[in-house]
Amino acid sequence: IRLTALIAGSVGKDGYRHYMEKELHEHPVVIGQTLQRMIDPATRRVVLPDLPFDLATVPRAVVTACGSAFYAGMIGRYWLEELARLPVDIDVASEMRYRNPPLTPGGMALLISQSGETADTLAAMRALRADKQHIVSVLNMEQSTMGRESDVVLGMVAGPEISVASTKAFTAQLSVLASLTVAIGRARGTLSEAREDALMSALFDLPSRAAEVFTNGDAIRSMAAIVAKARDVLYLGRGICFPVALEGALKLKEISYIHAEAYAAGEMKHGPISLIDSSVPIVAIAPSTILFDKVLSNLQEARARGGKLLVFTDAAGARRLKGVAEEIVVLPDVDAFVAPILYTIPVQFLAYEVALLKGTDVDQPRNLAKSVTVE
Amino acid sequence: IRLTALIAGSVGKDGYRHYMEKELHEHPVVIGQTLQRMIDPATRRVVLPDLPFDLATVPRAVVTACGSAFYAGMIGRYWLEELARLPVDIDVASEMRYRNPPLTPGGMALLISQSGETADTLAAMRALRADKQHIVSVLNMEQSTMGRESDVVLGMVAGPEISVASTKAFTAQLSVLASLTVAIGRARGTLSEAREDALMSALFDLPSRAAEVFTNGDAIRSMAAIVAKARDVLYLGRGICFPVALEGALKLKEISYIHAEAYAAGEMKHGPISLIDSSVPIVAIAPSTILFDKVLSNLQEARARGGKLLVFTDAAGARRLKGVAEEIVVLPDVDAFVAPILYTIPVQFLAYEVALLKGTDVDQPRNLAKSVTVE
Repeated sequence: IRLTALIAGSVGKDGYRHYMEKELHEHPVVIGQTLQRMIDPATRRVVLPDLPFDLATVPRAVVTACGSAFYAGMIGRYWLEELARLPVDIDVASEMRYRNPPLTPGGMALLISQSGETADTLAAMRALRADKQHIVSVLNMEQSTMGRESDVVLGMVAGPEISVASTKAFTAQLSVLASLTVAIGRARGTLSEAREDALMSALFDLPSRAAEVFTNGDAIRSMAAIVAKARDVLYLGRGICFPVALEGALKLKEISYIHAEAYAAGEMKHGPISLIDSSVPIVAIAPSTILFDKVLSNLQEARARGGKLLVFTDAAGARRLKGVAEEIVVLPDVDAFVAPILYTIPVQFLAYEVALLKGTDVDQPRNLAKSVTVE
Repeated sequence: IRLTALIAGSVGKDGYRHYMEKELHEHPVVIGQTLQRMIDPATRRVVLPDLPFDLATVPRAVVTACGSAFYAGMIGRYWLEELARLPVDIDVASEMRYRNPPLTPGGMALLISQSGETADTLAAMRALRADKQHIVSVLNMEQSTMGRESDVVLGMVAGPEISVASTKAFTAQLSVLASLTVAIGRARGTLSEAREDALMSALFDLPSRAAEVFTNGDAIRSMAAIVAKARDVLYLGRGICFPVALEGALKLKEISYIHAEAYAAGEMKHGPISLIDSSVPIVAIAPSTILFDKVLSNLQEARARGGKLLVFTDAAGARRLKGVAEEIVVLPDVDAFVAPILYTIPVQFLAYEVALLKGTDVDQPRNLAKSVTVE
């Protein structure tokens, strides 16, 4: 990780047209700063603050949050279950707080919030504490109500986020959750030394790979021109990239008012495919991981129904999609582990470019508040 | 439960315009028949087939399915966790089969499929068996591949379902899951005798309450006239009625090609509310349970942004919604336990009426197959 000045801390627009554009460009530094806080550069190992429980024996995790932070939590669930073999229960905070779920006492509750003041997440935190869960929160604003009421705060280093639609806070949340996963996997003995080294290398390289995303501006703008003409868009992903599709759809909805909806790609044939005709573009998050062939098959079904395919993939994926996809954004090769962090950046960038074409108020979209402190 | 002839077994349209209309009208008898198979009328207690595990000590359940059947599974999760205090892991089958989740050995896997041939669900079943889960499947076609490979089959009695869009199979699945929940709650000692009696009474009364839904045809058609003019619709519910909103949105999408999307009502303010203007009707599933005030508050926010509110509720809810909602369908009072079964019927009926107005091919919607036997 390169040492970088805390440029994410500045509060002007720094020559960008919108705070959102500026904050999108802060992804690489925010990811780097957040990882720097989680990782000892000398040992290249994750270092956590003192915890009131043992990571090796904690029975389960329960994850809750709202909006984009919830999608970050979904990605955290994939990581924790696959890499650390820690079973995870997950629900949006507005549901969790009223559901009284049967939780295993002594579990780790992971609460995620940019502001630390999100009313539903705070209420869920209190309910989870009453249910004998250890409270670990992932926050940007550590001096917040949630910060004060947590057993442990894992701070992201996202700096002030002014745009109502969250961008860099999301990848900062993911950087914390990815680091936490490696630490828990190490504690539980689920990662070989070689695998841990590979995961850490993927994290160390991520700020540089993230910076490379911005060379794709033209391809993203070509996609945006197609999306901006649509009234309805489907976002598809499988596995750990499904929540990235959810984040992409939410971002587009929030700032362009286009009705975007995300599906786990395998579910499309169980109903939503009937929606597809030539007026409905399909945005796919499809790095060439082990699930690529499955996603490709889902995309070919959509294309056979007239759907235009707009795909975020890597060089190997792009070769397979030639002649199939209408537009392709080719991203740097990365370990599948960090793909959800990297792919989030161009997917959010697409929403921004579409909003520019639609002429909406990017930084202050209608009906929305930055921090939802009411229920 | 009244004894009824097996009219759901007939395969003609019986004077209805479409199979879907006929099958919608079979809800009461299908619910009755399915409950009759699960419940001993003399003792008014659920009777399960022999199981290869002990319901009192089974550590967890894992639920998986595709499409509508997955939404039935989500409702099952709410029931099992709340009433039987049995913790549930849930995922769509196309995700579950590739995720290799860390499951507790000896758990109960609940697989739900109308046909018993759904490729993703069958593959998930085999993966779950390899993961040392006991396989319990909820099927309409018991003589199917899934039926043959299950440890136990809980059969619904839905009769042949010809319409591609599933209707009665969904309430039959729920009838099985509701009965199963009571049996597990009894085995685990989480239900008092009085509470179990109340739940059983709610189930016994359900076929009659379901039949009363069809007196609401005019109100549902008034709603349909509004929905048919929209291109985008949001469906909202909270708690156990959130999956009913998901089912309603999927059904509308499938047969009317209108882009309907469902949200847990509490999530709306975290993004999707920016989509709302006077062209986007909001369909709410809102029985007057303990969550009613929360849903009402979410609806008032949507209305303040110009959204037209179309609400399914009961008499007490209707009084609160006067002057707030544009159209109200008033359903019979039922115990909150069975509300998701009852409310599914008018919500599916709405999709049917909208499709009629749109002139789509109701029984054979474009791009869809009845049983998805490919991945």
